[in-house]
Amino acid sequence: MPTKTKQPLKRALVEQAFSVIEERGVEHLSLREVARRLGVSHQAPYKHFRSRDHILAAVVERCFADFAQHLSSRHSCDDPYDDLHQMGLAYLEFARRYPLQYRLMFNTALPDGAAHPEMLAQAQFAFSILYDKLCTMTLKDPGHPIPDPVKHDAIYIWSALHGLASLMQSDVTSTLGLSSEDKAVAVARLMRRMSISIAP
Amino acid sequence: MPTKTKQPLKRALVEQAFSVIEERGVEHLSLREVARRLGVSHQAPYKHFRSRDHILAAVVERCFADFAQHLSSRHSCDDPYDDLHQMGLAYLEFARRYPLQYRLMFNTALPDGAAHPEMLAQAQFAFSILYDKLCTMTLKDPGHPIPDPVKHDAIYIWSALHGLASLMQSDVTSTLGLSSEDKAVAVARLMRRMSISIAP
Repeated sequence: MPTKTKQPLKRALVEQAFSVIEERGVEHLSLREVARRLGVSHQAPYKHFRSRDHILAAVVERCFADFAQHLSSRHSCDDPYDDLHQMGLAYLEFARRYPLQYRLMFNTALPDGAAHPEMLAQAQFAFSILYDKLCTMTLKDPGHPIPDPVKHDAIYIWSALHGLASLMQSDVTSTLGLSSEDKAVAVARLMRRMSISIAP
Repeated sequence: MPTKTKQPLKRALVEQAFSVIEERGVEHLSLREVARRLGVSHQAPYKHFRSRDHILAAVVERCFADFAQHLSSRHSCDDPYDDLHQMGLAYLEFARRYPLQYRLMFNTALPDGAAHPEMLAQAQFAFSILYDKLCTMTLKDPGHPIPDPVKHDAIYIWSALHGLASLMQSDVTSTLGLSSEDKAVAVARLMRRMSISIAP
């Protein structure tokens, strides 16, 4: 998880925080543990982060930034439905390749967005990629604020992708005897059903 | 989580196992801990369960049985799309009211289905409620084996419901500022989009 800040200690703290979560779980994240691993004084992290929630917010902010970049760098298509399909594949690929980042965004007790505006901004930016895509597909004059029906369609599409990503990684699909081929076809089927359902 | 077996010790063991999971997490489930809580000898559980996985399978089996019963006892409608809508609402209600049971079925390392055929049968039965519903909606001559397209549509609908149920309980929807009203409308929207997408 490379970070882009020019402050080397801050960057190292965020990366080390991610490693703590990866190895020991988010409940073991503390500024003291991060400092210990970096070999700096246990006061050093406070230069950049006021609390454990602040460093967790910085980790989650990076996850959303990486996720948004991954979605934006999909193979893009001229046909809007093909392009939505590509975005869906990019979404599922991120969930499969980066399960911890994925879980941190969508399945973790998050710090309060109001207290961590930079994390919130990255989360909103990631979601806006889907919003904007749907706006260009369904509205003649895309713009802000996002109309409610587009927002609710975005939640629908996000739910379907999130549900599929989660189920594909769960034990229950194996328990039910779904093969790899079933799973691959199910992905294509879901994408097609989504396209049919939002077509004008 | 009432169980239906006529064997009182077995029933008490399964209920106590559920309590251990509820209070301490599935990773702390052991036959020894269950016996200790019931005040029986630590050999007593082995009369009914050969291992920790066997008692976990019995707990999960009850979850699937309760879930299937909940889906089946929905308010049923003559119109098949209205009925699918009711099934979706029943699904989401179960996830909201019984988050631990829900998580045990769909978000836990499950015992191997082949080694625990009774758990597997209950899981398959729960899934068959959705299969059968889709068969009656989309096929002229419903029957077994289930045709692949119906199976893949079932995965699509399940994914959308599972994703919505998970996101509604996650912090990220609050982080993004979705209100209760947004969530309620999103549920209705998702149901409508699903119906549109699978209509013949």
